[in-house]
Amino acid sequence: MISLDFHPAGRHFLQIPGPSPVPDRILRAISYPTIDHRGPEFGALGRKVLADIRKIFKTEHPVIIYPASGTGAWEAALSNTTSPGDTVLMYETGHFATLWKSMAESLGLQPEFLGLPGIEGWRRGVQPDMIEARLREDSGHRIRAVCVVHNETSTGVTSDIAAVRRAIDAAGHPALLMVDTISGLASADYRHDEWGVDVTVSGSQKGLMLPPGISFNALSPKAIAASKAARMPRSFWRWDEIIEANKNGYWPYTPNTNLLYGLSEALDMILEEGLDNVFARHQRLGEATRRAVRAWGLEIQCADPAVYSPVLTGVMMPEGVDADAVRKRIYERFNMSLGQALGKMRGKMFRIGHLGDCNDLTLMATLSGCEMGLKLSGVPLQGSGVAAAMEYLTSHADTPALKAAA
Amino acid sequence: MISLDFHPAGRHFLQIPGPSPVPDRILRAISYPTIDHRGPEFGALGRKVLADIRKIFKTEHPVIIYPASGTGAWEAALSNTTSPGDTVLMYETGHFATLWKSMAESLGLQPEFLGLPGIEGWRRGVQPDMIEARLREDSGHRIRAVCVVHNETSTGVTSDIAAVRRAIDAAGHPALLMVDTISGLASADYRHDEWGVDVTVSGSQKGLMLPPGISFNALSPKAIAASKAARMPRSFWRWDEIIEANKNGYWPYTPNTNLLYGLSEALDMILEEGLDNVFARHQRLGEATRRAVRAWGLEIQCADPAVYSPVLTGVMMPEGVDADAVRKRIYERFNMSLGQALGKMRGKMFRIGHLGDCNDLTLMATLSGCEMGLKLSGVPLQGSGVAAAMEYLTSHADTPALKAAA
Amino acid sequence: MISLDFHPAGRHFLQIPGPSPVPDRILRAISYPTIDHRGPEFGALGRKVLADIRKIFKTEHPVIIYPASGTGAWEAALSNTTSPGDTVLMYETGHFATLWKSMAESLGLQPEFLGLPGIEGWRRGVQPDMIEARLREDSGHRIRAVCVVHNETSTGVTSDIAAVRRAIDAAGHPALLMVDTISGLASADYRHDEWGVDVTVSGSQKGLMLPPGISFNALSPKAIAASKAARMPRSFWRWDEIIEANKNGYWPYTPNTNLLYGLSEALDMILEEGLDNVFARHQRLGEATRRAVRAWGLEIQCADPAVYSPVLTGVMMPEGVDADAVRKRIYERFNMSLGQALGKMRGKMFRIGHLGDCNDLTLMATLSGCEMGLKLSGVPLQGSGVAAAMEYLTSHADTPALKAAA
Amino acid sequence: MISLDFHPAGRHFLQIPGPSPVPDRILRAISYPTIDHRGPEFGALGRKVLADIRKIFKTEHPVIIYPASGTGAWEAALSNTTSPGDTVLMYETGHFATLWKSMAESLGLQPEFLGLPGIEGWRRGVQPDMIEARLREDSGHRIRAVCVVHNETSTGVTSDIAAVRRAIDAAGHPALLMVDTISGLASADYRHDEWGVDVTVSGSQKGLMLPPGISFNALSPKAIAASKAARMPRSFWRWDEIIEANKNGYWPYTPNTNLLYGLSEALDMILEEGLDNVFARHQRLGEATRRAVRAWGLEIQCADPAVYSPVLTGVMMPEGVDADAVRKRIYERFNMSLGQALGKMRGKMFRIGHLGDCNDLTLMATLSGCEMGLKLSGVPLQGSGVAAAMEYLTSHADTPALKAAA
Repeated sequence: MISLDFHPAGRHFLQIPGPSPVPDRILRAISYPTIDHRGPEFGALGRKVLADIRKIFKTEHPVIIYPASGTGAWEAALSNTTSPGDTVLMYETGHFATLWKSMAESLGLQPEFLGLPGIEGWRRGVQPDMIEARLREDSGHRIRAVCVVHNETSTGVTSDIAAVRRAIDAAGHPALLMVDTISGLASADYRHDEWGVDVTVSGSQKGLMLPPGISFNALSPKAIAASKAARMPRSFWRWDEIIEANKNGYWPYTPNTNLLYGLSEALDMILEEGLDNVFARHQRLGEATRRAVRAWGLEIQCADPAVYSPVLTGVMMPEGVDADAVRKRIYERFNMSLGQALGKMRGKMFRIGHLGDCNDLTLMATLSGCEMGLKLSGVPLQGSGVAAAMEYLTSHADTPALKAAA
Repeated sequence: MISLDFHPAGRHFLQIPGPSPVPDRILRAISYPTIDHRGPEFGALGRKVLADIRKIFKTEHPVIIYPASGTGAWEAALSNTTSPGDTVLMYETGHFATLWKSMAESLGLQPEFLGLPGIEGWRRGVQPDMIEARLREDSGHRIRAVCVVHNETSTGVTSDIAAVRRAIDAAGHPALLMVDTISGLASADYRHDEWGVDVTVSGSQKGLMLPPGISFNALSPKAIAASKAARMPRSFWRWDEIIEANKNGYWPYTPNTNLLYGLSEALDMILEEGLDNVFARHQRLGEATRRAVRAWGLEIQCADPAVYSPVLTGVMMPEGVDADAVRKRIYERFNMSLGQALGKMRGKMFRIGHLGDCNDLTLMATLSGCEMGLKLSGVPLQGSGVAAAMEYLTSHADTPALKAAA
Repeated sequence: MISLDFHPAGRHFLQIPGPSPVPDRILRAISYPTIDHRGPEFGALGRKVLADIRKIFKTEHPVIIYPASGTGAWEAALSNTTSPGDTVLMYETGHFATLWKSMAESLGLQPEFLGLPGIEGWRRGVQPDMIEARLREDSGHRIRAVCVVHNETSTGVTSDIAAVRRAIDAAGHPALLMVDTISGLASADYRHDEWGVDVTVSGSQKGLMLPPGISFNALSPKAIAASKAARMPRSFWRWDEIIEANKNGYWPYTPNTNLLYGLSEALDMILEEGLDNVFARHQRLGEATRRAVRAWGLEIQCADPAVYSPVLTGVMMPEGVDADAVRKRIYERFNMSLGQALGKMRGKMFRIGHLGDCNDLTLMATLSGCEMGLKLSGVPLQGSGVAAAMEYLTSHADTPALKAAA
Repeated sequence: MISLDFHPAGRHFLQIPGPSPVPDRILRAISYPTIDHRGPEFGALGRKVLADIRKIFKTEHPVIIYPASGTGAWEAALSNTTSPGDTVLMYETGHFATLWKSMAESLGLQPEFLGLPGIEGWRRGVQPDMIEARLREDSGHRIRAVCVVHNETSTGVTSDIAAVRRAIDAAGHPALLMVDTISGLASADYRHDEWGVDVTVSGSQKGLMLPPGISFNALSPKAIAASKAARMPRSFWRWDEIIEANKNGYWPYTPNTNLLYGLSEALDMILEEGLDNVFARHQRLGEATRRAVRAWGLEIQCADPAVYSPVLTGVMMPEGVDADAVRKRIYERFNMSLGQALGKMRGKMFRIGHLGDCNDLTLMATLSGCEMGLKLSGVPLQGSGVAAAMEYLTSHADTPALKAAA
């Protein structure tokens, strides 16, 4: 088999904002023998994961599980709800919002792309007032859907989805609200029903701690109703046949059996830990990371503390420093992968993932690797981020509850 | 974790025509930790699988690997080559051909569906003369593509793809030739370039011995050229961006990392055994199965010996016997899964899969389970299929070459 | 990694009388990361397996778990209970009884070796009257222990342990009763306490379905008392320190952590199925095998139907047939391992293992492989053993209860 | 299955001085299906590991591989070379040397136990002059063997084995030299032949990165000759039968199959990295750890810089601090296991393991966890050990060579 680790010894630190490190329990689960996707075991598995995944999205309505990676779920959201030529209102929070907009164009939609000018838009969350203003102008209700990203993986900035819903309602506009929380789900609090989201798009390889290959559409009754009128050519992504087959725990075509084993295990792990504990853990690791960045004297990519991401942190490089050269040095010398800056930010920052199956010491390894790599790259640092993070973790962290012995 | 085997003890026999039994080497490979899909290890992995997969399709041209199950690759073939309203000529060999036709309709195409009448069409392969005749009528060349299934998973009937190509050429028609060999690849001989196929559709969970979740489009230069003019809305399935990113071993969006580990291992295994040896093994197991069916006095679904499938065998039940009741009994009592009859054949037959990681004794277990289950179900049998298969295997099989000790 | 299967494709059939096929659940369990053998997780694991293993031996007293393979547990039984020069009464049921006797000699003991003459002794179980007679002669009570094998792995013959106990009691002799049930535990009914056994020796790689590497001594209070007076030099095998450390779930030296994960899983599986169901399954597979052997017109090694082993069956070859040549042919052509004849029986028979994680179709594959291999080897067969086994399995087997869906 | 991690999320850091963290490649290897230990695949595996393990011990002579954990290999060394009542000269370097001495007593030997007085002896390596002096006194050559520990796992102190050999030779004494390098092998340089060692004892769960369950005796021709005269009762541990069976790659009794798969993989990994690179990596991690300890203002257990262990570091607590309470806090709060102090040092220190599959960031996580745990425990620290370690690692480490892409 091809070697999967180019380093001679020791565990790789995968600190990109997804895929996140996959826990051993899940890796073992996905390696169980594949079974008949039409047999009774499979039906039991299907019913279980379909029930439990709703708890993660906080919804009472159907969640579609696709045997495809996350980009497919973007297409599914658009193709089930729109017709060729439709206008959709999208918001530029970063690279992934931009890619979703490009996809809308590829599909023959007319996306309007709101956002703050230049890089500034990539450093703050969605501005609900801009959305409200645009919808108020759209008196003919030509805009079919408002599409926003909850946790911008390219920047480390979240957006206030409930506020976007309030903006739509304030404008009295019937547009659907479609939200990408591919990297936010199961790491940052997310409430599909309470926030009035019509379609939530997500994926497996982030907070759910799975390998890539599964993606999701969580639906509202309004979205389901809209899909009946939508005329975008589609087949693989159709919700209706999947919803029908899902009633018994099956799918209309071959599902991604082994990743569903992993999903079952992941849901068990998350529900055992408790969603609120999961969110608190991510908040704590995020805050420790930001304290490290400030101690280094570097700038956090997210310019608005109200919307710091608990999932990843973008670290801006000083003028003249090539962030990718720093990342490469850290990878080669310290066997750690960090996230590359994308699109408008290319070369200007790197991204630290602190999501999924991470704990205090994983984070300390990560921050140590960053600090050493920055020094070796000649980046002037004001102080030790590692020391700042340790100070925070020792002074603020609750003792994690140990499981009771069996 | 949810229990994956409802039986108290012993290994399950997964003898459906896919997913086929996944070998331990592959299950271990897919359980390696997920890596950065933008890092150098991944690039090396990507380049390797992209090179080796061409050997399986027997092509010099690009093979697209999708992080999605096989149905998606059907859609990819259609959406990259057609425009809304286009006519495609499809041929009814069975249930999967019918599903592909339905997909074409869902996508807004105009499929014409050739075929022999009634069940007869499901028992014989594609009739090239019917295709040639229809293409000759199409003097305006409105037909964009001819779509046929190489190995009909619902019946156990193959089709002569080279003959279909000759028919198209004889008609002097420019239509693309698109072939589904989801269940034929790496089990039955297949020659993408030599047979002049423009798009070959395949999947992971059959001859490649992987879990479901990866699918393929093998392309011809003519297909690539056609994709530039095709106006079907598409994004996830677009060939052009994938071909571009693949040049360095990467993908434009997150690939199915862990299944690619498995694909790498599967390709190693198949190339170690040798493709011709793989095909010969499947032919032998298929012939032993058919001898068993004949000895039982039952009818083989495929009515034309020239196109018997080496992958699966459809076994017709006598009038009045519910095939699904037989299958259920075998499942419950003998812990073996057989394939359900689909569509027009529902309840009238069952399907025995003898593909992928199977050998003589796997087959004997399978046939024993069928014979005992048929008896317990009260199906009158003329003789012992198990005895007939043993007779064939002992008199015709070559001694498999042992590997040399390391 | 070195290739572990010399055959090009398909699953190997491991039908030797141990190691038996290891179920996937157990293989996954043993691959979990190794933990601190002094930490709290380990203590919880230790307490669980130490409690559950008693249920398998049917004892209320301590069971010692050694991080060593089964031969070590033989030595442990002897070295904890005897002093150099002691006499022990052993009984020749076959090759393993003979090896245990040789070990006693190596350790400086004086074994007396009872048994029926020639090969006859290897075809019948222990004769309790011979033991009783010898003990009655030993009026000075020089015999320290009576050592017998419960399930002779070399022949497929069991012995009546309760009758041996009665013989000892009838003689009024204080000797300890020590029993090897390495291949009988968790396949054949065994009752350490009820049968009055003082030390039971067993191993992991048979009915417990684990890889080799763990072995056991189940004790009686009388054995523990005897160990205090025993002067055989010993350290690694000492019971006292292990019993003390086990009180909290730990061991005095490093235990076999990953195999203990597997043991935990194995105990769960066996107790889920139910010990009585496990025994009934083995009885059924054993009977089907014997019917096959008789149908072939071959002789079963065990000459006394009252003590047929439910674990394995010895198949005698006709005069002039080299059993090892038959085995080699079956291995090379059908990818199945059968057990070699050992000691006095060398070349005259082969052994079929039908223990552990086996079911009806595993057995049918096994018997088919034997029947085909015998034919290819030119062994004249009276009829089809495969047919006889199918007849038995269809007419006598209960439908195994399916697990309720989760 | 019983839960193996009492912490809600994130990877456990196993930083005890063995078992060391087991790499994924090895965990996958040990989970391959168990095979016939008498079949040809097994023979090929056996021959490979028996050849490669000699490279690790740096010997041309036989290395015995036991299916038992390390304590067993201590007993094997003694029981194959001595007779009851023999005198052996042992040296007290720490807890494990003391345990080996106790074992010698249990076996009926007469150990003489040299050493420096009190705790001082536990802080320095073997004093060869003391050994030489004692051997010179033994003009009758009653001392059968000199037994020393190469890397004391209880303290983090190594000993100069070549100097011990010189001492024996200087005294002109025929005693065997027997060395325990259970925790030193494949982490610290070791040269069985060059140093004139007669029996080297080692185990699997340290530098070899395997789970516990396999242990070793590397032999010299002189040791083999001595074993022929030794009269200690023994059977399981006998070298002669194992050496004989090993000639073809087999063992006289059931070997630890699945751990041998792991050993094969471990040997591949170590030889791929290169033994000298492995040793250099351990030296570097050891030095970084010691710099951290000094920066904290704490004392290193090893008082002689010439014999610092590259495998583990003992950290002394200030007067009045309970080291075990610190360890417990670190375990519960930071999900890291550290080594408990043993024997004379109980409660006064903890041990940091930096062996096996470790790299720079693993170490930084470890040292961060220690520093935070010490602070939370109220231990006054002079400065940041983490900072000191980062300083060392950035200024002294060579860039590890990346593997060439496949």
